[in-house]
Amino acid sequence: MADPWQQCMDYAVTLARKAGEVVREALKEEISIMVKSSPADLVTVTDQKVEKMIISSIKEKYPSHSFIGEESVAAGEGSTLTDNPTWIIDPIDGTTNFVHRFPFVAVSIGFVVNKKIEFGVVYSCVEDKMYTGRKGKGAFCNGQKLRVSGQEDITKSLLVTEMGSSREPETLKIVLSNMERLLSIPVHGVRAVGTAAVNMCLVATGGADAYYEMGIHCWDMAGAGIIITEAGGVLLDVSGGPFDLMSRRIIAASSRAIGERIAKELQIIPLQRDDATN
Amino acid sequence: MADPWQQCMDYAVTLARKAGEVVREALKEEISIMVKSSPADLVTVTDQKVEKMIISSIKEKYPSHSFIGEESVAAGEGSTLTDNPTWIIDPIDGTTNFVHRFPFVAVSIGFVVNKKIEFGVVYSCVEDKMYTGRKGKGAFCNGQKLRVSGQEDITKSLLVTEMGSSREPETLKIVLSNMERLLSIPVHGVRAVGTAAVNMCLVATGGADAYYEMGIHCWDMAGAGIIITEAGGVLLDVSGGPFDLMSRRIIAASSRAIGERIAKELQIIPLQRDDATN
Repeated sequence: MADPWQQCMDYAVTLARKAGEVVREALKEEISIMVKSSPADLVTVTDQKVEKMIISSIKEKYPSHSFIGEESVAAGEGSTLTDNPTWIIDPIDGTTNFVHRFPFVAVSIGFVVNKKIEFGVVYSCVEDKMYTGRKGKGAFCNGQKLRVSGQEDITKSLLVTEMGSSREPETLKIVLSNMERLLSIPVHGVRAVGTAAVNMCLVATGGADAYYEMGIHCWDMAGAGIIITEAGGVLLDVSGGPFDLMSRRIIAASSRAIGERIAKELQIIPLQRDDATN
Repeated sequence: MADPWQQCMDYAVTLARKAGEVVREALKEEISIMVKSSPADLVTVTDQKVEKMIISSIKEKYPSHSFIGEESVAAGEGSTLTDNPTWIIDPIDGTTNFVHRFPFVAVSIGFVVNKKIEFGVVYSCVEDKMYTGRKGKGAFCNGQKLRVSGQEDITKSLLVTEMGSSREPETLKIVLSNMERLLSIPVHGVRAVGTAAVNMCLVATGGADAYYEMGIHCWDMAGAGIIITEAGGVLLDVSGGPFDLMSRRIIAASSRAIGERIAKELQIIPLQRDDATN
């Protein structure tokens, strides 16, 4: 049987590339910034423009599909995941990087059917790296097959995460004390390039052994999540239990052993789910 | 008058590129690791091989010059800076990244005469980016002129640093509490790509607004230091006073205002200088 979603995936790749061109062009111009919830939460006209472009293109081709997009949600639309084919979009993952022209900025598109991720596309547009993952068919970067490191020994691992996505003092204290505990295991090191999607893709390439974070959203994880699992990695909840796309928390690891070991060290930050009804 | 050191600089660029090729080739092979002082302090045969290659090539051409190299010092050679023309070399800045194939690994060469940096070359070899700075003549990346952001407002700044280069519990606590204070100013964010030289070059490009660190060495700073100043940035000590190449501490900023503001927040970690006599 032909893959029912391959056409959608091909379209997602085309759109991500086109969106990436818009982002790259915008980097050459003056960037005007708006602050959303906090100084760590920025948005630009480019985020909004790129999301509109992606969603309107998909709607035209697949009018029955559903959407969850970072900027649409910020503008008041819902983010409840149904069984309907759903495109989950982050037009610019790494908006702070974009604003600063720090060279890691990604367009992220995840496609979910019956609440399972079918494929993901992450285009790191300054690096010109197109990461893709299709359920059961592997993960690739610019056509090259990806494989996680397979590392199982936490003391030989390199981690990626984000510090300071929240500036609420209590949250920041937990984020930094989690980092202190992990560094003290010890691990080889911790890196942070400033976009969840690229951080996760670095785990898929084998360049890092695990990524963990609390406070991100489904649009930060949907695209890269399947790239990790198709590269042989695992997704876990920060408790060590099963990963939940709408929970705003993730451990993405090169092996279950590493993922569970990280979970043991993490103090959990209370968060409102993406699909919480207000 | 012709620039007396231009020939040395051209040679440094050639050597850095050649060294980078060796590093890139080594990334394709099995990498065997040796631990130096701690799990955060790794070395490989490639570090040693590349440093020997660079130093022996320079010695042949400039037999009267002096050298300070990371691996030579680790092997017991001195690191006292004299007025003699001195090449300060880090064969692989980002050895932990190299070991993990995390894609930021640099060859760093600084050239110092009368204790002043005359030029610096940083070759980020996976990205194939050749950064150079020559006193009075500007800084470049792959031929393109570099300019720092010029940002003066700390609350609009993106910082780069390193966490966990020391795992001594008291030191780690200071590193993380410094980060907490900076994030709480607030700043836009903190990034860490895992090499001091590349972190600093990201400030030179304008992609980040400041870099700070304590515990690094002259070979981590000599190459990129002049790239920052020639891109219009400033180097300061973490106290806010004048930068000292042998002090193992640095703030490299896009403006004096940002650098001094960071200095105000930093609790200082006691360190033995690079030129301390044991």
